[in-house]
Amino acid sequence: MTRTRLDTIRAAMAAASLDAFVLSRADEHLGEYVPPSAERLAWLTGFTGSAGLAIILPGRAALFTDGRYTLQAEHETDPALFERHHVTDEPPQPWLREQLHQAARIGYDPRLFSAEGVARYQDAGLTMVPLEPNPVDQAWTDRPQPPMAPAYPYPAGTASSAKRAAAAKILADAKHDAAILTDPHSIAWLLNIRGGDLPYTPVALAFAILGADASVRLFISPGKLTRTTSDWLSGIGLHPPEALPDALDALAGRTVRVDPAGAPVWFAQRLELAGAKVAEAPDPCLLLKACKDEWERQGARAAHHRDAAALIRFLAWLEQRPSGTDEHQAAERLLAFRREVSGFRSESFPAISGAGPNGAIIHYRVTEATARPLADDEAYLIDSGAQYQDGTTDVTRTVWTGPGLPPPDLRQAYTRVLQGHIALATARFPKGVAGPHLDALARRPLWDAGLDYDHGTGHGVGSFLSVHEGPAGLSRAARPIPLAPGMILSDEPGYYEPGRFGIRLENLLLVVPDETAARPFLRFETLTLAPFDRRLIDKALLSPAEHAWLDAYHARVLEEVGPNLPEAARTWLERAAAPLGTGSLTNPAPNS
Amino acid sequence: MTRTRLDTIRAAMAAASLDAFVLSRADEHLGEYVPPSAERLAWLTGFTGSAGLAIILPGRAALFTDGRYTLQAEHETDPALFERHHVTDEPPQPWLREQLHQAARIGYDPRLFSAEGVARYQDAGLTMVPLEPNPVDQAWTDRPQPPMAPAYPYPAGTASSAKRAAAAKILADAKHDAAILTDPHSIAWLLNIRGGDLPYTPVALAFAILGADASVRLFISPGKLTRTTSDWLSGIGLHPPEALPDALDALAGRTVRVDPAGAPVWFAQRLELAGAKVAEAPDPCLLLKACKDEWERQGARAAHHRDAAALIRFLAWLEQRPSGTDEHQAAERLLAFRREVSGFRSESFPAISGAGPNGAIIHYRVTEATARPLADDEAYLIDSGAQYQDGTTDVTRTVWTGPGLPPPDLRQAYTRVLQGHIALATARFPKGVAGPHLDALARRPLWDAGLDYDHGTGHGVGSFLSVHEGPAGLSRAARPIPLAPGMILSDEPGYYEPGRFGIRLENLLLVVPDETAARPFLRFETLTLAPFDRRLIDKALLSPAEHAWLDAYHARVLEEVGPNLPEAARTWLERAAAPLGTGSLTNPAPNS
Repeated sequence: MTRTRLDTIRAAMAAASLDAFVLSRADEHLGEYVPPSAERLAWLTGFTGSAGLAIILPGRAALFTDGRYTLQAEHETDPALFERHHVTDEPPQPWLREQLHQAARIGYDPRLFSAEGVARYQDAGLTMVPLEPNPVDQAWTDRPQPPMAPAYPYPAGTASSAKRAAAAKILADAKHDAAILTDPHSIAWLLNIRGGDLPYTPVALAFAILGADASVRLFISPGKLTRTTSDWLSGIGLHPPEALPDALDALAGRTVRVDPAGAPVWFAQRLELAGAKVAEAPDPCLLLKACKDEWERQGARAAHHRDAAALIRFLAWLEQRPSGTDEHQAAERLLAFRREVSGFRSESFPAISGAGPNGAIIHYRVTEATARPLADDEAYLIDSGAQYQDGTTDVTRTVWTGPGLPPPDLRQAYTRVLQGHIALATARFPKGVAGPHLDALARRPLWDAGLDYDHGTGHGVGSFLSVHEGPAGLSRAARPIPLAPGMILSDEPGYYEPGRFGIRLENLLLVVPDETAARPFLRFETLTLAPFDRRLIDKALLSPAEHAWLDAYHARVLEEVGPNLPEAARTWLERAAAPLGTGSLTNPAPNS
Repeated sequence: MTRTRLDTIRAAMAAASLDAFVLSRADEHLGEYVPPSAERLAWLTGFTGSAGLAIILPGRAALFTDGRYTLQAEHETDPALFERHHVTDEPPQPWLREQLHQAARIGYDPRLFSAEGVARYQDAGLTMVPLEPNPVDQAWTDRPQPPMAPAYPYPAGTASSAKRAAAAKILADAKHDAAILTDPHSIAWLLNIRGGDLPYTPVALAFAILGADASVRLFISPGKLTRTTSDWLSGIGLHPPEALPDALDALAGRTVRVDPAGAPVWFAQRLELAGAKVAEAPDPCLLLKACKDEWERQGARAAHHRDAAALIRFLAWLEQRPSGTDEHQAAERLLAFRREVSGFRSESFPAISGAGPNGAIIHYRVTEATARPLADDEAYLIDSGAQYQDGTTDVTRTVWTGPGLPPPDLRQAYTRVLQGHIALATARFPKGVAGPHLDALARRPLWDAGLDYDHGTGHGVGSFLSVHEGPAGLSRAARPIPLAPGMILSDEPGYYEPGRFGIRLENLLLVVPDETAARPFLRFETLTLAPFDRRLIDKALLSPAEHAWLDAYHARVLEEVGPNLPEAARTWLERAAAPLGTGSLTNPAPNS
């Protein structure tokens, strides 16, 4: 069947005089999750991972995936039809250039690539040809219907009118007449609505045009609009998605802002054809959305308090878990605790639940069929989060399964990861400092031992929106956007010993003003409340300040979450959150 | 006289239908120092500072300088002719836009602006018109002759042929046929020559064209070439500067690399007019030059050993200085000690010698006329360096003049600056980390107290070349160029209390491989050897590791430099470099 599908694509390539066709896993919104109706890559190749790229040539085809999907790509695709390549070791652009002659034409669907995405091919000297309609869409006869979940009002603290005015001011200041919004999260934030079109992130798929006069035209399937929602959106122009091309054409002569990284290049191409002037600049909602207002900050604090109770019940349960409990069952147990929390809507991403060596697989995805039982005396890593009505959580803890004592090198690595976590959480810094400048604080204790981790230290987190939210991040690869009050960022250093164990310790941090400094300073407020496993901490490595931070944090967890716990979990927490070196979970002797 | 000069420029503007003319202090090489023959800004405005910009309009004129030159600009320019603006508070581009109508044409000399420099005006919506010849050059009849110091062979460790091959490979890999070299430091490095055309940096002003075949054509005044040097440059095409335009025109049809940040935009304009394809990319020598070879590393170590003896003799002298010694005399005394050092060629920059409140002026420039006497019981900051035949030094120490004890807040600030210095000097980090990622390590101890400093933490340093060398730097504003073995960078955190004192502690660090880590790691080797003032250190603030680093560093200074000192200085060093809390320079009691 895949061969027939490939043949269809190749026929379309020939008809358009193309030497290649590239298809990524992105949909028309270029987001992290796509609905089944946009799983074109899976339809064409069989590969169902969350990131990948297929390149079809007349006589060959190749699938490029990253390291986490190497095995899955081998299982899901036919080697007679697809070569498999590692996207980092063999980037697709030079590979394509080697296969093709100088004048070769490479087709792509401009609705599925950003301007920056296309530029990566053009910068490698490749000629990119937009192809509409996408030959996959033409051949995919049993394609699922697009999602049609109802959008619903989300009465946030700041009125949509105020948000529209703030975003419109950004346009006016830049002398842009309008901006194209293609990110459903921006639209959800701007219009104070939420939806259910995607897993893990509560948005309605839609497009919008924001004017410098603060007007908004929303392009959304009428089927998603209840009467209540339409009323809620009074003052917003409501149009079906089919009206979008004409609306773009009507911007002829105007200067229209399009995000070169976030928006499909189709918009810029269509606007330019229509005679509009395209201004490449970030989505004007991005930075506004990242800086949570007071209502969102209070919501985040409240959501984290409630989420903490679920996580602590889970950690208490884990010590008494039924023999043979596996990674999948553990994650399901945590989800069950979360379902009992008021305001719970969904997980905020698929939980990573890795025991022993699986903890060292940074993007490990547990399934019922392949789950490993939690064995005695190994490290267990659980990275999970939830969407609540008032906020989004994301937390990672690594615990020792017992009953024996952890090996010294594991304790040393855990302690260094914890020291890095504390170093970032306690940082005070002047305004103007950006995430890439702080990343090293979290790594320093590991670097001192010649160790490191191969992922960023932290990402932005939305407010009942995406758990991975731009534009700021706490990693060297993040754009150097100054941190600002109201941003929520994860602090998640780790250490991974392949084949043995993985450690990651993650809290969410809220950026707040630091009023005690002589200049404009900022600091972090820790939102996440759950104990760190004291059995894995080598007290001798901690400085007095680190020791004091940990004890104070544990005391805060006990004081703020303890009263909301059932008795068994509270009793467990009293031991788990006791000062280091006291209580029945005593600190093992150094090097024991 | 200045009015007449302004009138001449305005007449030239009118003749060329220009609404404005901009003149910066740069010369045709866009470097840090310019020869008297290129002091156009001083000729036109009277202002002699090292950085500034004049904007001439038909009825007004303005001089833009940074904070360190506010007073000097007021003294040196006529308020009836020039408004004075602070370049950061009132950037010239928006200011210009406010003064001018939409279609205004702004003239500039394309030999004195880089492509990026011109783009800053264009990005503000201004129309920039290259103007040749520069009206200042036409009107400046008593202009000094350009410098004509002889260039001389510099037999470095790596042969010029090998350097040319390495730089040419960068061109070939990028499919560039040739590169324009406009930075005399790149040419000095590439051809293993030095010169004497500028103060503080031993270069011969020249241009060059490097071919992808490793050929070099050097455009230099024949008057700078002795027979010995011409012989040394065998295989290099030697041409007078007048031959440069034709040589550029002859590159028609070729792809020519021009540095958009470092090269005057005139080169790209001329090449494009001639039909060449301009490729904007960094000077291919920059990164190669920054990574010192083994011979340069050994030279740096040797130069620092010898320089240390001069600085330590000075610090010992300072304790016994004649009553009434002022900042200028102190700097002259240090220079006199350095002149006695073998291989000494010149200072590497004008020494900053600031007593008491003058120490808080980051770019304080002492003069004989305005020097302040060193008083008792205040902080004295001296930032200085030298060019030696085998290496370039740059070191800052802050000392307490005594005889009393320093105030607690000064000791606390000094200790935090020292902690930041140590944090950076002891960092170990994986390959790929760049300067902007490490800057926070040096600031953290100050940030913890709500303090900071308004300059970068460190800059690159050349090898008997510029004391300020790109492309890497240890500041947030530096380009994120991964640190690499052989780079020499300064580590100079500080703290400045306006009106009271300034603190800066600077050593140079050499990037070296760290063979003890499990992955490819780097670390720093400290090159500079001079004691820190123990009277200013609050031992109670130091961690055990910081205390141990300081004692070990002092022991190293004593062991490595002590034997090269005259007896009195050696005796002084034995006390100054004794372990913290011992010896006759005992640590004052906390908060005393």
